[in-house]
Amino acid sequence: MAIPPGITEQDFANALQEFANIVGEEWVFTSEEDTSLYKDVYSIYQNSDLEPEVSAAIAPDSAEQVQAIVRVANRYLVPLYPISTGKNLGYGGSSPILSGSVVLDLKRMNRILNVDTRNHTMLVEPGVSFYDVINYFEENDLPLSMDIPDPAWGSPIGHALERGFAHTYSENGRDRWDTVCGMEVVLGNGEIVRTGPGACEGSRTWQDQKWGIGPYVDGIFSQSNFGVITKMGFWIRPAHEGYRSLTVFVPRFEDLTRMVDLDSYLQNAGIVNGMTVMGAPMFGGGFMFFNTPPPTPEHRQLLQVVDNRRPDIAPLQQYCTENRIGAWALELKWHLPNRISAAAAEYTKDLFAREIPGCWFGDEHVLEFPLGEDVIATLNERPGNPERVNLGIPSLSRFGMGVRATGQPSTSQGHFWFAPMVPKKGEELLKYQEVMQQAHVELGVPFMGSFYGNLPMYWTKRVGVGLANWAVSTDPEVNRRTREQYIAMTQICVDNGWTEYRAPAPVHTEIMSIINNWNDGSLLTLHEALKDAVDPNGILSAGRYGIWPRHMREEMRGA
Amino acid sequence: MAIPPGITEQDFANALQEFANIVGEEWVFTSEEDTSLYKDVYSIYQNSDLEPEVSAAIAPDSAEQVQAIVRVANRYLVPLYPISTGKNLGYGGSSPILSGSVVLDLKRMNRILNVDTRNHTMLVEPGVSFYDVINYFEENDLPLSMDIPDPAWGSPIGHALERGFAHTYSENGRDRWDTVCGMEVVLGNGEIVRTGPGACEGSRTWQDQKWGIGPYVDGIFSQSNFGVITKMGFWIRPAHEGYRSLTVFVPRFEDLTRMVDLDSYLQNAGIVNGMTVMGAPMFGGGFMFFNTPPPTPEHRQLLQVVDNRRPDIAPLQQYCTENRIGAWALELKWHLPNRISAAAAEYTKDLFAREIPGCWFGDEHVLEFPLGEDVIATLNERPGNPERVNLGIPSLSRFGMGVRATGQPSTSQGHFWFAPMVPKKGEELLKYQEVMQQAHVELGVPFMGSFYGNLPMYWTKRVGVGLANWAVSTDPEVNRRTREQYIAMTQICVDNGWTEYRAPAPVHTEIMSIINNWNDGSLLTLHEALKDAVDPNGILSAGRYGIWPRHMREEMRGA
Repeated sequence: MAIPPGITEQDFANALQEFANIVGEEWVFTSEEDTSLYKDVYSIYQNSDLEPEVSAAIAPDSAEQVQAIVRVANRYLVPLYPISTGKNLGYGGSSPILSGSVVLDLKRMNRILNVDTRNHTMLVEPGVSFYDVINYFEENDLPLSMDIPDPAWGSPIGHALERGFAHTYSENGRDRWDTVCGMEVVLGNGEIVRTGPGACEGSRTWQDQKWGIGPYVDGIFSQSNFGVITKMGFWIRPAHEGYRSLTVFVPRFEDLTRMVDLDSYLQNAGIVNGMTVMGAPMFGGGFMFFNTPPPTPEHRQLLQVVDNRRPDIAPLQQYCTENRIGAWALELKWHLPNRISAAAAEYTKDLFAREIPGCWFGDEHVLEFPLGEDVIATLNERPGNPERVNLGIPSLSRFGMGVRATGQPSTSQGHFWFAPMVPKKGEELLKYQEVMQQAHVELGVPFMGSFYGNLPMYWTKRVGVGLANWAVSTDPEVNRRTREQYIAMTQICVDNGWTEYRAPAPVHTEIMSIINNWNDGSLLTLHEALKDAVDPNGILSAGRYGIWPRHMREEMRGA
Repeated sequence: MAIPPGITEQDFANALQEFANIVGEEWVFTSEEDTSLYKDVYSIYQNSDLEPEVSAAIAPDSAEQVQAIVRVANRYLVPLYPISTGKNLGYGGSSPILSGSVVLDLKRMNRILNVDTRNHTMLVEPGVSFYDVINYFEENDLPLSMDIPDPAWGSPIGHALERGFAHTYSENGRDRWDTVCGMEVVLGNGEIVRTGPGACEGSRTWQDQKWGIGPYVDGIFSQSNFGVITKMGFWIRPAHEGYRSLTVFVPRFEDLTRMVDLDSYLQNAGIVNGMTVMGAPMFGGGFMFFNTPPPTPEHRQLLQVVDNRRPDIAPLQQYCTENRIGAWALELKWHLPNRISAAAAEYTKDLFAREIPGCWFGDEHVLEFPLGEDVIATLNERPGNPERVNLGIPSLSRFGMGVRATGQPSTSQGHFWFAPMVPKKGEELLKYQEVMQQAHVELGVPFMGSFYGNLPMYWTKRVGVGLANWAVSTDPEVNRRTREQYIAMTQICVDNGWTEYRAPAPVHTEIMSIINNWNDGSLLTLHEALKDAVDPNGILSAGRYGIWPRHMREEMRGA
């Protein structure tokens, strides 16, 4: 059995006994068979001695038990690694960063504590999954909906703390953290707090207003290791009444900039409220979303990348013009009653027709809710159909895209996500494609032929996320190189002013130093000061987002 | 000349000389004539020896100067009290809480550093006012708009840090803090950080994504005293194309609950995007917003409050039914192209007609932008007309309402705001009215006759703010009683689960203890731990939101 670094076997045994006294013997796991389940199944360290070990796992059933566990851990200096439920695939799974950590598995805390159908909020525990929430709405016939990510097996709390994205309209975009309203947190020092109005006993507005009075502290618990969240409130939305999507194709390569700006106008003026998907039919990209035929052999011929440079535009433009293939495409979505979105779509068509001469419109999908089973069966069925995940219906289809994106022969080995944030400007997207194309080739990163067909995902209104990924290998040497390439790719992006929104745990320390380079990394120093203030013994999730306990800081990040 | 507590005259003289070396002699103010300008002109301590003194004021011109000042202040332990620009009337003005503090006046830092017309963002310094921003848009003919508060003489940064509200649509409601994207902060310890993607040198997305990677720290700098904000990014919006308002009247007292729920539905489903105003015509309230006649003598007779209880509903209901006076009224607003809002308004009318039989609709105002001067001249002109502040046009009309709300004979003495957050549920609003009516009478707080006509303001989608206020007196004894009443009123609200969203500085210490009573005030202990981490010498804004430097904590709040 592994034991945590820096403590004696006897102390660890005593700590485990105390943990068992808190949660019951049956909820403390120490066998290799059990603890190995917490390793990252997509581990970049597989088959190497760098793979972090899990010394034990504890599954508490309440915030009080979590608090008692954190206090015991502080006494024995046992490092804890809290996880909610779900998989975090491609981002490090449930594996700790510091080998020998004890996983604090919160999946038993799976209560839906409150659902407000009138103000559209809910309060849940970390073990609740998106499926649990959707099922709860259905079983209780509640006229509610929740913006879901893909896949839906994860936890809203875990998703929020990792600041993940989802696909449906919610009032603040599809940015989960923006929908969090009120938390209960066990701090690293063992204290427990409620944030926002929840700091008032019997508060009537805990899930209705985020900030409370005085400093708004919630944000410091996201993408960090300062506390264990035991309850979290969310803003959800009423059940969908309607759905409409409209695809716009623009004819010329140079129309990209105006197309993107018009989307920003529509989003930021509140005229469109769904997620935008953009594609590059001219470059053979995105056709699965737009119901356009895949590139012909002749088209593919024109897409050949020579010397890693963008294919010549002139012949491509000619081919696309002759064959009525859009240079770029934009899918706009509305989650509104359909008679309202009809007016918005008409407005949008007029706007594009006026601003981008020669553009045309593709399929317009309109759905009325509640959806019949027959309608649901047609979703995801062919390219261009509305996707289930866009309608709040769980599905694995997009997850599957990620798994296959690097073209690895087997989807079972897993992948390792790279997710830089790209400015939402046409000219910057084109530059991003060039830089990423060059970077992939120069660093020797396997990818699917060309980066020119890839456009970022627009989960939020003002920034795109330019997903790329690596296949994880069973060969430790390949994985070592992947890790190096990832770090080098981060540096290339940073040199261009592009940072990441999230990253796999095994590279947190390196990439946080690279990204946070303003004023000698003063923001990281602030993160460390906050860590020391709320978790002075450095008990929680050592190394997560590059934040190490004081006593390991010099060794682990040279600071 | 006052000197800060705990330091010698010689040290203070040396510190002032060092400040002068940084900013120039002409930007260090020590004469009584100058420093008295920073006192709260609405001070609750006027004519008493509790009135805090300002020992000096310094006006730096850059973040570098701010950093140098904070470092000098740390060396001499000089307490600083940063202010942006604007007045903060009714909330403590620009006066420090700790007498003898040096005001750090940031009004010279008034540069608009960047305005992005394509992604609708801006980056400004603390001395920039809302007027500056609106004028900048106009002078440069930029197709942009900004959600403004009332009045507009203040600073977007100050407004955000106090988490104030505004009146127009912005994508995240009218909650200023929700529109903040990226900051530069000089910490209390003299270090300087940029938050979010801005922590990356040359970031291309600093104003486009709020969180960056790693802990999101921005929130801890709002309603606190941990740092001096030297730059802040904001999400703004495209210029308005259209505006529509629709007033709904519901006939029966008991319709309130359904009316409020329908508004929540419309807001949370994204069908309405402007600010809702509610009123109580049955109880003689809100008629200035709804273009309804003021109550007749007969109506006023029925509104007599006996034994501090809500007037009998039956005769009131009969009178209102016979005279077609709505029991309650709701004004909905759209900031959208008018042909889209026309469809939304039709949907809304059908919804109300179906759900609340007998309801009717009042004036519908529709405006096309840009507004002509002739149209602007008609705004605010009579009850029920669109208000300038709702259209992004600065105005003082609402500020005037606040000044006069307590019915004090002179508007020049000032007022002291009380702003509890009330759940957005009809039955809770009724309870709030009862409790506040009783509380005003029992505590002997002067108010305008009856609380039953007062409905909260719905700046945000899920919570109302139930404004009340006290007139400030020239008599210190009256003001002492006001302070006591304020604290007692806070306790009454807390006993009902209602907390405040913001409060005047002179009561911060008391009310933060009263409100944060869950788990023995553990959230306040966390605030203090964060304070010690980023401002270990307690240099900045001692006492703000109840957070005192370590060495004063026991004396000032008994902790």
